[in-house]
Amino acid sequence: MPVLARFSAGGADYAVRRARRGDVAAIVALIAADQIGATRDGGDLAPYERAFAAIDADPAQLLVVVTDVSGALAGTLQLTFIPGLARRGGLRAQIEAVRVREDLRGGGVGHALFAWAIDEARRRDCVLVQLTSDKRRAEAHRFYGRLGFTASHDGFKLRLADP
Amino acid sequence: MPVLARFSAGGADYAVRRARRGDVAAIVALIAADQIGATRDGGDLAPYERAFAAIDADPAQLLVVVTDVSGALAGTLQLTFIPGLARRGGLRAQIEAVRVREDLRGGGVGHALFAWAIDEARRRDCVLVQLTSDKRRAEAHRFYGRLGFTASHDGFKLRLADP
Repeated sequence: MPVLARFSAGGADYAVRRARRGDVAAIVALIAADQIGATRDGGDLAPYERAFAAIDADPAQLLVVVTDVSGALAGTLQLTFIPGLARRGGLRAQIEAVRVREDLRGGGVGHALFAWAIDEARRRDCVLVQLTSDKRRAEAHRFYGRLGFTASHDGFKLRLADP
Repeated sequence: MPVLARFSAGGADYAVRRARRGDVAAIVALIAADQIGATRDGGDLAPYERAFAAIDADPAQLLVVVTDVSGALAGTLQLTFIPGLARRGGLRAQIEAVRVREDLRGGGVGHALFAWAIDEARRRDCVLVQLTSDKRRAEAHRFYGRLGFTASHDGFKLRLADP
């Protein structure tokens, strides 16, 4: 898998690349390690592997991982490119499932990963980058503010199935 | 284009169907008639027609219109189906670009259109329906609350290009 970007943070080197099937267990572990996602994720990998296959086959999806020099996962996010009529038919980039390994938070890995994602959205001529973040994540909201995002919207969710 | 659903609201009959290229001008007029979108949309149709072609070719997108008995547009919304690893690899349905013709607001057309969209998300085994709404749209937020949505998230936007 070719490296999409390289960066240094806190004196260590990292690479961003497209996720592959062998990363699924480690990505799920990152998702499940998160305080808010903990009750929802983990366990049997089969549904995650099916979802990975759908993500990987869809050219509108770009699921990436950040790896450290040992090859271990340091973070992940998913970009989705959504065509629409509003904003003069502008393509939008949406970011979901952002996670940075707990011991690396606040050290610049998340910032560098987002800087790459925003650049990727520009390269694909997106007019907008959007994401939603749980209202309980105050620290994440300050992080998005520093990146130039505006919390102009409310994010509404309607759960159809558990978890 | 086959009818996806029929409903009555305020004593009149409506149909929901997939949008076709010939609807683009009328959909853009609905988008531009909106107070918040007014400064961003309208004018030359070419970029909208290009965007429509991208939406129409993508099986993850479902742009629909509601028509009244005369065939005129009464409303529109776009559904996007997004595969992801979080929530046990659950598919999510996202709703964007919701508009109901001004003279029909508050009369049940929006409610029926949303009820159809939520049903469609269930039919496709989505675990979640999500949308963001400008914080200035207080009336819309009450509407989403009545439909069962929770404003659990903040919606962050980063504009890369005007409008």
